[in-house]
Amino acid sequence: MQFTAQQIGLLLNGTIEGDPLVPVNQLAKIEEAKPGSLSFLANPKYEQYLYTTEASVVIVNNNQVLAEPVKATLIRVENAYSAFTILLEKYNTLKLNKTGIEQPSFVHPSAQIGENVYIGAFAYIGQNAKIGNNSKIYPQVFIADDVAVGDNVTIFPGVKIYFDCKIGNNVIIHSGAIIGSDGFGFAPAADGTYTKISQIGNVIVEDDVEIGSNTTIDRATMGSTVIHKGAKLDNLLMIAHNVEIGANTVIAAQTGISGSTKIGDNCVLGGQVGIVGHISIARGSQLMAKSGINRNITEEGKKWGGIPFFTGYMENLRIEAAVTHLPAMEKRLVELEKIISELRKDVH
Amino acid sequence: MQFTAQQIGLLLNGTIEGDPLVPVNQLAKIEEAKPGSLSFLANPKYEQYLYTTEASVVIVNNNQVLAEPVKATLIRVENAYSAFTILLEKYNTLKLNKTGIEQPSFVHPSAQIGENVYIGAFAYIGQNAKIGNNSKIYPQVFIADDVAVGDNVTIFPGVKIYFDCKIGNNVIIHSGAIIGSDGFGFAPAADGTYTKISQIGNVIVEDDVEIGSNTTIDRATMGSTVIHKGAKLDNLLMIAHNVEIGANTVIAAQTGISGSTKIGDNCVLGGQVGIVGHISIARGSQLMAKSGINRNITEEGKKWGGIPFFTGYMENLRIEAAVTHLPAMEKRLVELEKIISELRKDVH
Amino acid sequence: MQFTAQQIGLLLNGTIEGDPLVPVNQLAKIEEAKPGSLSFLANPKYEQYLYTTEASVVIVNNNQVLAEPVKATLIRVENAYSAFTILLEKYNTLKLNKTGIEQPSFVHPSAQIGENVYIGAFAYIGQNAKIGNNSKIYPQVFIADDVAVGDNVTIFPGVKIYFDCKIGNNVIIHSGAIIGSDGFGFAPAADGTYTKISQIGNVIVEDDVEIGSNTTIDRATMGSTVIHKGAKLDNLLMIAHNVEIGANTVIAAQTGISGSTKIGDNCVLGGQVGIVGHISIARGSQLMAKSGINRNITEEGKKWGGIPFFTGYMENLRIEAAVTHLPAMEKRLVELEKIISELRKDVH
Repeated sequence: MQFTAQQIGLLLNGTIEGDPLVPVNQLAKIEEAKPGSLSFLANPKYEQYLYTTEASVVIVNNNQVLAEPVKATLIRVENAYSAFTILLEKYNTLKLNKTGIEQPSFVHPSAQIGENVYIGAFAYIGQNAKIGNNSKIYPQVFIADDVAVGDNVTIFPGVKIYFDCKIGNNVIIHSGAIIGSDGFGFAPAADGTYTKISQIGNVIVEDDVEIGSNTTIDRATMGSTVIHKGAKLDNLLMIAHNVEIGANTVIAAQTGISGSTKIGDNCVLGGQVGIVGHISIARGSQLMAKSGINRNITEEGKKWGGIPFFTGYMENLRIEAAVTHLPAMEKRLVELEKIISELRKDVH
Repeated sequence: MQFTAQQIGLLLNGTIEGDPLVPVNQLAKIEEAKPGSLSFLANPKYEQYLYTTEASVVIVNNNQVLAEPVKATLIRVENAYSAFTILLEKYNTLKLNKTGIEQPSFVHPSAQIGENVYIGAFAYIGQNAKIGNNSKIYPQVFIADDVAVGDNVTIFPGVKIYFDCKIGNNVIIHSGAIIGSDGFGFAPAADGTYTKISQIGNVIVEDDVEIGSNTTIDRATMGSTVIHKGAKLDNLLMIAHNVEIGANTVIAAQTGISGSTKIGDNCVLGGQVGIVGHISIARGSQLMAKSGINRNITEEGKKWGGIPFFTGYMENLRIEAAVTHLPAMEKRLVELEKIISELRKDVH
Repeated sequence: MQFTAQQIGLLLNGTIEGDPLVPVNQLAKIEEAKPGSLSFLANPKYEQYLYTTEASVVIVNNNQVLAEPVKATLIRVENAYSAFTILLEKYNTLKLNKTGIEQPSFVHPSAQIGENVYIGAFAYIGQNAKIGNNSKIYPQVFIADDVAVGDNVTIFPGVKIYFDCKIGNNVIIHSGAIIGSDGFGFAPAADGTYTKISQIGNVIVEDDVEIGSNTTIDRATMGSTVIHKGAKLDNLLMIAHNVEIGANTVIAAQTGISGSTKIGDNCVLGGQVGIVGHISIARGSQLMAKSGINRNITEEGKKWGGIPFFTGYMENLRIEAAVTHLPAMEKRLVELEKIISELRKDVH
């Protein structure tokens, strides 16, 4: 895809300074841009790059003053950052503008398919499944029987959604994510073997959720595992059966949450965190990367961390610092013991 | 699927109290049940819910005494919990009762397919592969050349099994699990590059094993990586080349086991545990979540934990408590040093 | 596949001692070999097994002296270890010698497919995608629009590669790996919701890289996430947006690297390591398994470890030892406080 500065200026309702016919075919940061790139300058901290960049076109704020001559063609707009964001979105939309049903794909005759839908080759849509309007089901996706998918949903290649699960509107699910596999539930028998406990619940993913690649969300034993509206889940997470993730909660990669735990709204969890089952984490909590959380957090809006116990965030930083002093502390302790032993001899 | 209280009573050989024609279409916990739900009461602790539940039908023990009037239709049976478990299983069986070969699928002419098998659309069955009786191969599964799959096996959508691997009877493998990818073996060269060591072994999964979604089990360099009978593996595990997992051992999500390590029978491993290569963990060991295990465990049936070293479980709890006291301990140490320095002045 | 000792001797240009017609059909370690196995002896430490092995054929060095009679047929060669490695590779090549295009598969008419390529059933090759010569695209792989794949590349079943990504020559990607899913980038709004930041960069995987199963590598926000030449990545890694992994760097399973972090060349990272975003790790660094790295490492070629802070490797070992002494240290501190309190009474 190639555009001229003029075409982009028209799109953004901007003013051109320099050659309006210079072509661009990619978007890049101003400090990394090569010829043929379109870039932007919004943060004054980066102004120096405006005079040295190899970008062919740079979007700047209307009030940008030029301290030196600029080689690139400029497009002046009200807000350079927003204008660039609009271009990012347009680029992505162009790349992801699939529609129609590719063949071979498998759509059960009883499935209900909305309008303006994309169904990629080798995708599987089961019995009584429902796909909303404007949704995109990429190749090799599996949508089991009785699954409902909302409107404007994007499901990338290879996602698997087990039976009975519900996906809201405007949801994005990345490749390899597994929604609705069995919860990890077994009853121990006297002889040491385990009997599987049937997992007949489902997973409910509410509107505006994004789920990262290869994340797994297990179905509830009974009832539902729920990802509430606007939550954002990174790659390779483990969300166990009957967990609830609060609205607008953000969870970084490789974190695992054990069965029946409830994470409140507007929480932020770092990567590689582990949380035991059957506890609650209060709204607005922030958990440091790699933390091991094994108790309820009832106070809202605080930072926590530490492995495998947990303490307040600042207290944990103090503990971490003290841990690095430990070998020295141990030596000092031995030294004190010696001195005291001598002192006692002197005194008695 | 909708049933009346009467139909379910017949199935369970129970006695109806109340409207036998009330319909139910889902199973739910007594405290969460909505109208149209079938629930059960087994634990006396929950008896209060019997009088307040919105469930349409509740299964109770024959000897259940009613302290107050009950709105729901009751089904009296010998053992309410077992009766409900039977219904859970029947529900699951109905949901997973696929048979036949969907098209398009790829079955090599030399493959041997048992009786009463399900092969989903876009599944791939390689040369000389063998699928046992009553097994279900869901859509988009890949079964490589020379793989053998036993009887009554369920392989959920998107599982990939590399060549030469062997899967026993009654095994369940969840979506996205990868069985038999190459072990991570490279020989360093003098110039800093690495040469791949061919991985020609396989993976053997014995009877009654369950494997969670997106778990990876690497093939042995030579010989076999073995998951012994009745082991239960959760999601997102890493089982490296030449590892052995003992019979009836249970491993929680996101745990990783390095090459050639042997885990004994009847062990329980928490989530996010990491175990180094070439060690043995004794039968019946229990490893705390997030532990880092770097030495052999030779004593059977003990609890262990701690990161990244390890100690006995109780000792580790004491260490964790002491770690939280560290900043205070450090202050007390400074205080003692001051006092002692003054004492010495006084004494000498 | 069955061969005689004679056939293998010819292939390796070796000399036969014993029955040249004895058949073998598998490769095995000398200490585990069963009848019908071909094994080797290179390390003098294992010589004892030469006289007790059940292997039918053993490859030995030309200068191997026999202290006792040997039951197996011997093949004498210049270097037994190299000769065996050649056989391992040949075995693997036989197992993975697929060519041709299986049906049904989806190859966009605009895609460019090289010579001598394998495209498995249910694989998807997008618009303008390019597959180099001698490359193998296994079943159920997804290659998006505008992806370029080099020569001699092996992409195992179920790998998904998003649009615009570039894969070099001689690359191996294992099942379930996801290349180019969106970076985890969201802008917080005043009402607590998050707005997605479009991720329009790509992933570049250079020559000779191997990527393990179910590993995820996110595309850059802008620019490229880069895996440099010869890097080896194990299973279930998380490589975030705009990360760079240096040439010949080796990373063990379940490690996660946050956005924009640069790992130098020739590093070795253990399993379950977590690294924060926007830092640099110097060339040749070695990071202990489970480490949590939150600062730049600028010194080249050193070992580091510890959670969640980090220190030098030896210092960390000392800290770990001291941590196990903590409960005892705390008791000693209490004891000292008591003694000193008494001493003060005595002195004053």
